[in-house]
Amino acid sequence: MSRPLGAIVDALGGQLVGNPSLEILRLAPLATATSCELSFVAQARYASQIATTAAGALIVPPALQEAAAARGACVVSEDPYLYFARLTQWWRAQHEPAELASIHPSAHIDPSAVIGEGVSIGAGAVVGPGAHIGAGTRIGPHCVLARGASVGAGSLLYARVSIGERCAVGARAILHPGVVIGADGFGFAPHRGEWVKIEQLGAVRIGDDVEIGANTCIDRGALDDTVIGNGVKLDNLIQIGHNVRIGDHTAMAGCVGVAGTAVIGAHCSVGGGAIILGHLSLADRVNISAATVVTRSIHQPGLYTGMFPIDDNAAWEKNAASLKQLNRLRERVRALEQRNDTDKNRTS
Amino acid sequence: MSRPLGAIVDALGGQLVGNPSLEILRLAPLATATSCELSFVAQARYASQIATTAAGALIVPPALQEAAAARGACVVSEDPYLYFARLTQWWRAQHEPAELASIHPSAHIDPSAVIGEGVSIGAGAVVGPGAHIGAGTRIGPHCVLARGASVGAGSLLYARVSIGERCAVGARAILHPGVVIGADGFGFAPHRGEWVKIEQLGAVRIGDDVEIGANTCIDRGALDDTVIGNGVKLDNLIQIGHNVRIGDHTAMAGCVGVAGTAVIGAHCSVGGGAIILGHLSLADRVNISAATVVTRSIHQPGLYTGMFPIDDNAAWEKNAASLKQLNRLRERVRALEQRNDTDKNRTS
Amino acid sequence: MSRPLGAIVDALGGQLVGNPSLEILRLAPLATATSCELSFVAQARYASQIATTAAGALIVPPALQEAAAARGACVVSEDPYLYFARLTQWWRAQHEPAELASIHPSAHIDPSAVIGEGVSIGAGAVVGPGAHIGAGTRIGPHCVLARGASVGAGSLLYARVSIGERCAVGARAILHPGVVIGADGFGFAPHRGEWVKIEQLGAVRIGDDVEIGANTCIDRGALDDTVIGNGVKLDNLIQIGHNVRIGDHTAMAGCVGVAGTAVIGAHCSVGGGAIILGHLSLADRVNISAATVVTRSIHQPGLYTGMFPIDDNAAWEKNAASLKQLNRLRERVRALEQRNDTDKNRTS
Repeated sequence: MSRPLGAIVDALGGQLVGNPSLEILRLAPLATATSCELSFVAQARYASQIATTAAGALIVPPALQEAAAARGACVVSEDPYLYFARLTQWWRAQHEPAELASIHPSAHIDPSAVIGEGVSIGAGAVVGPGAHIGAGTRIGPHCVLARGASVGAGSLLYARVSIGERCAVGARAILHPGVVIGADGFGFAPHRGEWVKIEQLGAVRIGDDVEIGANTCIDRGALDDTVIGNGVKLDNLIQIGHNVRIGDHTAMAGCVGVAGTAVIGAHCSVGGGAIILGHLSLADRVNISAATVVTRSIHQPGLYTGMFPIDDNAAWEKNAASLKQLNRLRERVRALEQRNDTDKNRTS
Repeated sequence: MSRPLGAIVDALGGQLVGNPSLEILRLAPLATATSCELSFVAQARYASQIATTAAGALIVPPALQEAAAARGACVVSEDPYLYFARLTQWWRAQHEPAELASIHPSAHIDPSAVIGEGVSIGAGAVVGPGAHIGAGTRIGPHCVLARGASVGAGSLLYARVSIGERCAVGARAILHPGVVIGADGFGFAPHRGEWVKIEQLGAVRIGDDVEIGANTCIDRGALDDTVIGNGVKLDNLIQIGHNVRIGDHTAMAGCVGVAGTAVIGAHCSVGGGAIILGHLSLADRVNISAATVVTRSIHQPGLYTGMFPIDDNAAWEKNAASLKQLNRLRERVRALEQRNDTDKNRTS
Repeated sequence: MSRPLGAIVDALGGQLVGNPSLEILRLAPLATATSCELSFVAQARYASQIATTAAGALIVPPALQEAAAARGACVVSEDPYLYFARLTQWWRAQHEPAELASIHPSAHIDPSAVIGEGVSIGAGAVVGPGAHIGAGTRIGPHCVLARGASVGAGSLLYARVSIGERCAVGARAILHPGVVIGADGFGFAPHRGEWVKIEQLGAVRIGDDVEIGANTCIDRGALDDTVIGNGVKLDNLIQIGHNVRIGDHTAMAGCVGVAGTAVIGAHCSVGGGAIILGHLSLADRVNISAATVVTRSIHQPGLYTGMFPIDDNAAWEKNAASLKQLNRLRERVRALEQRNDTDKNRTS
């Protein structure tokens, strides 16, 4: 199902240089694109790739217009990567089969639930008492919305997403399979060597335009709510503890763990596998590298890192053994310095 | 739905100082509590917070009774945090809508399964041949209990929990959505560059009063069973490998991974994101810090840690580069020391 | 349900020394095996264990035949561990109740789906338009195969596995509960402090003989596909980002995270909790230790490691504090060396 290049520019803007009736069969990466495929060059510094790609057409920044036009059709855009993002959205919409909204007969919907216009609900899904589903939202098969849960308009829940009691998800959310919103936070009081459960009476409140990856979990608060801001993007297999607050437009890569009551600013990023301890805060625009452990609050924007550098195993073994003596080594250096100073005093 | 302060003390004990008919609308954290809310001060060292909170009433230790009573109603308890934990349980029970036990008509229950008194089973749940469900247990929608699986009395399984063949969960368990008990352990014999599967013939046995967080996985044993003790608390997204044994009342925070055949003592704690390698053992009362990798057995109680300290990225880069030369640095220090000693001998 | 030792050797080969009618009740680990149980000694260096085990019979390498026969029945095999792996498969097949292929009446199968011979489909499973299921494959309850998804012949999907649109799984796959194949990769273009979604137009292609652990996620590619080779074994709770390529027969332990566009060779192994960053490549036969962060491409086979060594917390605190001054320490050592050299020049 191809589309003419002109139709793309009609829909998304940009300046077309070349033949508008060129048929685009697929979007493709620069390195592997063929003559019926459209690709993009994000920045002028990738100019050299223009010469080698076989793409039928390119999205390029103004600085590369001349070079791109010299080899074939191109679309000139101030921000080719953004243009490409919007193009993928348009492309998907063009190719997705139109589906009429429908409630599967095997879905279990409590009579007290409020279902908006044009809502789709998949096979076996359970919508509890007092739950709300906004207009145009699609609920995948086997999703469970517990009592009083709500999902805003225009959202997409893939298969088997769980939204716990009283938890609220905003508009235009995308929740991937296996997401669990509103499981109990991890709270216990110690008593004679055993753990007494602290019931988690709060809920989860999630803003608009949030995307949450497969099997990611966001726990409900102990007393107050766990709060996720607008535009937050969470990748797969992330754990968000109770009473965490995440500011608007913060993004986290896969396998991140955020412990309870951490407060994370807006426009932050957290790399894959990072761990953020509880009861601390990160300012806006803090970036945490992958696999880094955040053990204290961070008050200044910037990039923060802490990971052991990879090495061949034999070298690592030696350095790791030395690391366990590092404080002692520092004392030995201090002793050498003091002795040198003494010698110097004696000889001077 | 408020409750008078007197009703709380009637139910949970403690010494009431103040007006028993004061209506409590909500339990709240000290910092944000308002005049119709009840909060707690866990320890005498938080005494200063009594002056600033707007809470309508406070749970306090005896040492703080005077200060608390001076500002309003209070409940005096030897262990306010424990009191608070029990209060959350009572509060939840008071507010939870009473639900009659019921088997959803869309549940699939094998005729040979044994279902106790007062059991609830949710929509679409599957209960296999020979499975046992103890009295009063609630099985959420889309849970799957395979052939011969069992869950003890008074347990609560949220949506889509899987209990594999012959695996047994004890009484009063709480299993959150997406939990997988009894997937195959990860076992293969290498053969000519390929992997030959070792069928996992053991099962999983879980004690009483265990809570398991969302999407956490506990694998079945290869030959013997994987065994989880009484009162163990596991947070979300934890992986427990085959043949692991976890002692009573041990707690693990989110994203922990425990490799096969590790033996973990009783009353241990494991911080979030820690990794425990296989075929090792931890004594009772061992505490592992977050993000720490346990590479050897630990025989003494205590707190153990290993994580790279976070720093601004530029500082980290320099220190990490130096770390890859650390063993060489140690040799250089040794050379300096030897030379100093030689010099000393020469000059003395 | 016991089996005579002779039946085992008839089925799996090896040289039987001893009584073929000895009834074997169970396979068991060497340390706990009793007189009606069969165990194995993998290698000659474990010879000492032969003297202490109470096992009724042993699988041993030729070098241990004499010692093993001196104490009772044994089966001699060139590779006892491989023999044991195959024995577990045979044993399971002997004991598993025969189940006729059946499509559960509550499964939802689109009329355009293509279902092979002898396929079983569990309760509530959803098979979308144009999906393909190969002969003899078993689909567990609540699995969802989206439009155009396919699973090869002889595969086993446990409960609630999701296979996204157009994603393909090969023959003889084993997918454990909660696996998510083909959720969207994590791709966004930044725009004025917000994130614009890049629709993920690729799919996931998985080879034959692949096993994927519980709650593991493999994202679909952005433009091209994410590709998993033949014979790959992935443990539980692993995250594979978009456009990752994993070579044949590579194995990864639990909790591993692989970021987008990483290319991993064949016959590699990755230890539990390791993180592999994106846009890099690992050669064939690269082994990554547990909890190691791979931050750069690795071109040579071998074992690579990077993890902070565990220590008692007090020692760790001192060494970690020194680590934050390590580059400075190196400069101090250099200063000492230079001064020593100067002194030497002066005195010589």
